[in-house]
Amino acid sequence: MAAVVLEDESLRDGLQFEQKILTLDQKLSLYRLLAAAGVRRLQVGSFVHPKLVPQMADTAELIETVRGETPGVLLTALVLNDKGLERALRCGLGHLSLSSSASDSHSLKNVKRPADQAFASLLELVRLAVAAGLQVRAGIQCAFGCVYEGAVPEARVLEMAARLADSGANELNLADTAGMANPVQVKRLVAKTRAALPQLPISIHLHDTRGLGLTNMLAAYESGVTLFDVAAGGLGGCPFVKGAAGNVAAEDAVNLFEQIGVETGIDLKALCRVVDRYEQLLDRSLPGRMNRVIQSQRAACG
Amino acid sequence: MAAVVLEDESLRDGLQFEQKILTLDQKLSLYRLLAAAGVRRLQVGSFVHPKLVPQMADTAELIETVRGETPGVLLTALVLNDKGLERALRCGLGHLSLSSSASDSHSLKNVKRPADQAFASLLELVRLAVAAGLQVRAGIQCAFGCVYEGAVPEARVLEMAARLADSGANELNLADTAGMANPVQVKRLVAKTRAALPQLPISIHLHDTRGLGLTNMLAAYESGVTLFDVAAGGLGGCPFVKGAAGNVAAEDAVNLFEQIGVETGIDLKALCRVVDRYEQLLDRSLPGRMNRVIQSQRAACG
Repeated sequence: MAAVVLEDESLRDGLQFEQKILTLDQKLSLYRLLAAAGVRRLQVGSFVHPKLVPQMADTAELIETVRGETPGVLLTALVLNDKGLERALRCGLGHLSLSSSASDSHSLKNVKRPADQAFASLLELVRLAVAAGLQVRAGIQCAFGCVYEGAVPEARVLEMAARLADSGANELNLADTAGMANPVQVKRLVAKTRAALPQLPISIHLHDTRGLGLTNMLAAYESGVTLFDVAAGGLGGCPFVKGAAGNVAAEDAVNLFEQIGVETGIDLKALCRVVDRYEQLLDRSLPGRMNRVIQSQRAACG
Repeated sequence: MAAVVLEDESLRDGLQFEQKILTLDQKLSLYRLLAAAGVRRLQVGSFVHPKLVPQMADTAELIETVRGETPGVLLTALVLNDKGLERALRCGLGHLSLSSSASDSHSLKNVKRPADQAFASLLELVRLAVAAGLQVRAGIQCAFGCVYEGAVPEARVLEMAARLADSGANELNLADTAGMANPVQVKRLVAKTRAALPQLPISIHLHDTRGLGLTNMLAAYESGVTLFDVAAGGLGGCPFVKGAAGNVAAEDAVNLFEQIGVETGIDLKALCRVVDRYEQLLDRSLPGRMNRVIQSQRAACG
């Protein structure tokens, strides 16, 4: 079966709201462990104001340090505005993630602007980044529903997708920010998007709030998607989404695909050592399952 | 889409290895809450030796008390041997669950007998129970793999299934005791079993060890299975299976099916109140997700 590419976002979506702020050295060591485990796409930070999100303040330094080290790795970061774009360009980043929300209420809470205003800025930012020669992934947050508004009309998501494609985005990221997606809906929205925009690669960003992260990932894969966001350990969660859980755990996604014979290029045991390291650094146990399974196997062998 | 029937096993598989032994009154109140939430199949206990599994010592009393109360509910319990069958008959139970393992190593650890011996006894027990006029569900443990032996040959599972059908079993339960199943395997084994035994209803028992419980449940549903075992809160786990996690959480299964438009007959909020009650009684938080989601909604409304 077709291989998949997993983008690990533990260093960005995973850490951005963690109370404990990791040092640059700690992040560098995590980055290198992830790359060594075979992760080939890494979203490592966010160019936001360091006072608003101090967890991400060292994103530029992190990128400058590792960017020559791992030629096979697609290095990316989140950019929210013009200033962030300038900073991303200055540190030599070749790929960006940009996004806005399909839900007004979520947009107001997250970026303090209505969805249409935020989307207009997003389109402009995509154009600027493409004009500057960057590869751009454009994302639609709350594409599968919003905790505040409930269902999000598919027509709205499809219209946003079409306009993002027109503005030159190289990839469309459909994000289940609220963890509300279900597998039937995932298949339907992916099919409609692919039918409308057959040239545009689609990636899927899932949260595991209702325990359906892997189920939705498989549904997307069965619909032809081969790019997925994950985070080591299942790190993550959003303060603007009530009851939000983390991203799909990278190690659980690797196990799923391995079990059904789909290549990820990632070494599961090496990946679980990164999860161990996160658990040590953050001093808590993370929600991903495979690290527990592998630890219990190790204990039994010892 | 076709409706599904969820059999809640929280009172049996969920509680059988809990350190805290609930009282008969506590179990009665849980049973009544589950039935009131719309659960229509309940596995409430196990006729094992009370010294071996004191958690299940009051199974007969529990059944005798509730059996007239809830005419719409299929009441069932686990029976392991002739003595258990006698006890089940004495308390007027009309439906039994019997099973043995497809894996020798698991069988030796679980019942201290090789798989073929345990299976011969199971066949005899099925015949006795059927002859006594009982409805019998016959289960194959480790049907999707064994932590000790790895892959379990499908041919072995299919042969056991055929012999169970011959002995008069009314339903075949394929159990992923080790939580090792993957969705491709589930679809394949269900398809083969249905092809070989088209008249025999199949139910599926899944553990969430690798986070694939719901994914495998959906795969089985897509293959035509409409009977699933669950446990409120995701209770459960097996001391003879390294790193085992609980059953698929009843509330998460209800949410999945509700979201994709498949009827379960169960009220999700009422079910989550049972999970609340389990969490109070056991004094810990359970792994199911939907109770957390509904609690955060309640908090936001308050």
